[in-house]
Amino acid sequence: MFAAELKSDTLKGLVNIISTLIDEVKFTVTAEGMTLKAVDPAHVAMIEMNIGKGAFESYSASDCEMGLDLDKVKGVLKLAGSGDIIRMEQDESAGRLVFKVGNITRRMNLVDTSSLSDPKVPHLELSSNISVAVDELQKGIRAAESISDHITLTATSEYFDLSCEGDTDSSSLRLDKSAVKELDVAGQATSMFPLDYFSNIIKAIPAGTVVKIGLDNDYPVKLMFGLADDNAKVEYLLAPRIENE
Amino acid sequence: MFAAELKSDTLKGLVNIISTLIDEVKFTVTAEGMTLKAVDPAHVAMIEMNIGKGAFESYSASDCEMGLDLDKVKGVLKLAGSGDIIRMEQDESAGRLVFKVGNITRRMNLVDTSSLSDPKVPHLELSSNISVAVDELQKGIRAAESISDHITLTATSEYFDLSCEGDTDSSSLRLDKSAVKELDVAGQATSMFPLDYFSNIIKAIPAGTVVKIGLDNDYPVKLMFGLADDNAKVEYLLAPRIENE
Amino acid sequence: MFAAELKSDTLKGLVNIISTLIDEVKFTVTAEGMTLKAVDPAHVAMIEMNIGKGAFESYSASDCEMGLDLDKVKGVLKLAGSGDIIRMEQDESAGRLVFKVGNITRRMNLVDTSSLSDPKVPHLELSSNISVAVDELQKGIRAAESISDHITLTATSEYFDLSCEGDTDSSSLRLDKSAVKELDVAGQATSMFPLDYFSNIIKAIPAGTVVKIGLDNDYPVKLMFGLADDNAKVEYLLAPRIENE
Repeated sequence: MFAAELKSDTLKGLVNIISTLIDEVKFTVTAEGMTLKAVDPAHVAMIEMNIGKGAFESYSASDCEMGLDLDKVKGVLKLAGSGDIIRMEQDESAGRLVFKVGNITRRMNLVDTSSLSDPKVPHLELSSNISVAVDELQKGIRAAESISDHITLTATSEYFDLSCEGDTDSSSLRLDKSAVKELDVAGQATSMFPLDYFSNIIKAIPAGTVVKIGLDNDYPVKLMFGLADDNAKVEYLLAPRIENE
Repeated sequence: MFAAELKSDTLKGLVNIISTLIDEVKFTVTAEGMTLKAVDPAHVAMIEMNIGKGAFESYSASDCEMGLDLDKVKGVLKLAGSGDIIRMEQDESAGRLVFKVGNITRRMNLVDTSSLSDPKVPHLELSSNISVAVDELQKGIRAAESISDHITLTATSEYFDLSCEGDTDSSSLRLDKSAVKELDVAGQATSMFPLDYFSNIIKAIPAGTVVKIGLDNDYPVKLMFGLADDNAKVEYLLAPRIENE
Repeated sequence: MFAAELKSDTLKGLVNIISTLIDEVKFTVTAEGMTLKAVDPAHVAMIEMNIGKGAFESYSASDCEMGLDLDKVKGVLKLAGSGDIIRMEQDESAGRLVFKVGNITRRMNLVDTSSLSDPKVPHLELSSNISVAVDELQKGIRAAESISDHITLTATSEYFDLSCEGDTDSSSLRLDKSAVKELDVAGQATSMFPLDYFSNIIKAIPAGTVVKIGLDNDYPVKLMFGLADDNAKVEYLLAPRIENE
């Protein structure tokens, strides 16, 4: 059983994050909320999302799994205005989810969850932690975009730096200690990542959100942030690109 | 002879409606106004428009026919700002229409009217009448768009409903008696229509316009509405799609 | 040596004008400012630009040449907000120009100037001079766009006219003496020009700018205007299209 109401803006924020990785997702539903673990088809990035019942206007569920096609959910979001409430209700007999927005009723088939993977999210200990407003990261990405396909994150005890080195050109965004919320670095941490993945997730995070970054040397990066007034927690892991010598 | 002035917004509103069906049109001009009857190339929909001289800022004409290429008229509309007056004047010697917008003069060849059809608009008696703000119909269309190529209109004495049934998904917009201006239904009326035609005409009607809908069972739908402060009257007929059993 | 700071809006205005003709340009830098002479690959139009040091917030340079890829400079402009200051500094050892916008550093290779032409700009005596707000010229271009590939400029002692004659249609924008700033015409001057070139440069000139037009019969047109509060001067020459009889 699953019935819930939430603001269209909240649902949109959650869907935007997940759909940077995959279109068809499996939510694990409990009385306390919904969780999601997903990996992209190329196994480069991984997302774990916990949506507490506090993210909803109303929420009532018993344990179940629910497979959703996010493209269809985006279609529902287009029918809702910015302040609208979206009601979702499982129609268990038919294996369908019913969305209601105002006087519109939209029924959609659930996706068969047996075909959807349930990845194991590794537990990583990363030596450095940086907290920074996502807006700064978005600026660093725009500066990198025409230069190279990769972006290098570097943290020292003095600064956090997003840089990019092309054949003839380079760009960097340097944030001094005073421009970040937290800079807890032992020595130096630097790793390089595929720009498209990093860019997609960073651009999907709402402006103003503080992102906590776990970084190490030639190691995955972990991005942690809250959505829906911190009622939803996201952890995003991205594999590094390690240059051969 | 034909010379008239009208607001660019008025001309735009009229052109938007007609060009959902055809590009080259024949207007029948009299001292009292202009009329138009047109059918789309596939003979699925038909439009009849009566533009009274009250729709114009100034109007002076004797009986004639005038063939216009609406794509070119749209080009003229792009040269006019929202409050601008557009002057049209027939240049009879040359078979051209002269548009003036501010200090711009735009001369265009008239289309030969002998090649343009003059369809006979059937007189239909439809059992049910519904009046509703076009904004609600536009919402119903958006909800249907990714589901199917057809939309079903249903009216009962209690509600008016736009619905759409796909292979796995469905959507519906239900307007209760209180949400419509008029609901005069004997029993039930329900017919299915091609979504693209219905969508094109409904989207071309200015927000806030009240549309009177004539509906019956497996029968054409008639849409009636006013433009230009009701100085122009439009009747639009759309053939149903009747499912074989 | 070259180091300068200027407003992003100023740099954008200059780049927009030059890039209507070419992408890779050679600036001649002196202590007093920068100059540029360029011709388009088809040798139809020519531009001469003098940017005085007053156009910059700060400026310090010794004589040198600097080759720039304007596409890359446009990329830098996208990183700057409307009020931002952009700092440019030549990194002579590496033959690179370093741009700084806030906490972003963008290094780009200079283009080899030996491959860039240094055209001789002819000195033309044109019999008629017209000064007019670029906004009016932009209106005249929009009116011409769907009619023909050429635009005819005509000046008499009474009016200035932009007109366009197609096979079946025509358009013209007529500016009476009272609608232009200056109309100094001996007899009549009329020449025809390729619409795409004329349109590209006119559309790149900021709204409100007064353009001084030098015109003659079947002869090039010269456009003269200021940018950056008149601290930068532009002369643009466009070859006529002369109809054979």
